[in-house]
Amino acid sequence: MPLEDDLFEKLRLELRRGSLVLAVLGALKVERYGYTLRKVLAEAGLEIDESALYPMLRRLETQGLLTSEWREEDKRNKRFYRLSPDGETLTAQLAAEWRAINVSLDTLL
Amino acid sequence: MPLEDDLFEKLRLELRRGSLVLAVLGALKVERYGYTLRKVLAEAGLEIDESALYPMLRRLETQGLLTSEWREEDKRNKRFYRLSPDGETLTAQLAAEWRAINVSLDTLL
Repeated sequence: MPLEDDLFEKLRLELRRGSLVLAVLGALKVERYGYTLRKVLAEAGLEIDESALYPMLRRLETQGLLTSEWREEDKRNKRFYRLSPDGETLTAQLAAEWRAINVSLDTLL
Repeated sequence: MPLEDDLFEKLRLELRRGSLVLAVLGALKVERYGYTLRKVLAEAGLEIDESALYPMLRRLETQGLLTSEWREEDKRNKRFYRLSPDGETLTAQLAAEWRAINVSLDTLL
């Protein structure tokens, strides 16, 4: 069976999915609005579509990990997001978990 | 809202899920049967239930990434798994992807 590109793509996305939540949480240690959040993620090498980002932000806010606030900047209303205190705690826990997974994978690869 | 343990657990599992396939592929660069595979994963810090491992192995074999063979060892029939040539290629690609994600997350955390 020839190696299918879409199989690699599927596994690649699976690998990224879990990391993306952690990346978003990490990026929101400082307050950002959607555009600057996507920009900092893309600059770090993690592109994310608006159609994936905004539902994730809503979910994280519902879960109490983020707070958001509408504010005017440069004469436009923007919704600013940042970690809540609970979000800071959970981000630190998840980051520790991520480091532990890395140690495991380094052993196996 | 108090930080809920099951929310952390949910996000932790999400983070692990994608890594687990890569860990299994990495562990099967050498031939192993189920028990020794679970053991090497657990020793590396990645516990996986039989109920999750065996379906994953069947799926990876169907996808052409693993080969398997029944063979007798110590008077018991065991099914041995290892990477196919396609599996070796894909494992190297996924490992590179994983390292790239780590660089991204290191930037953000």
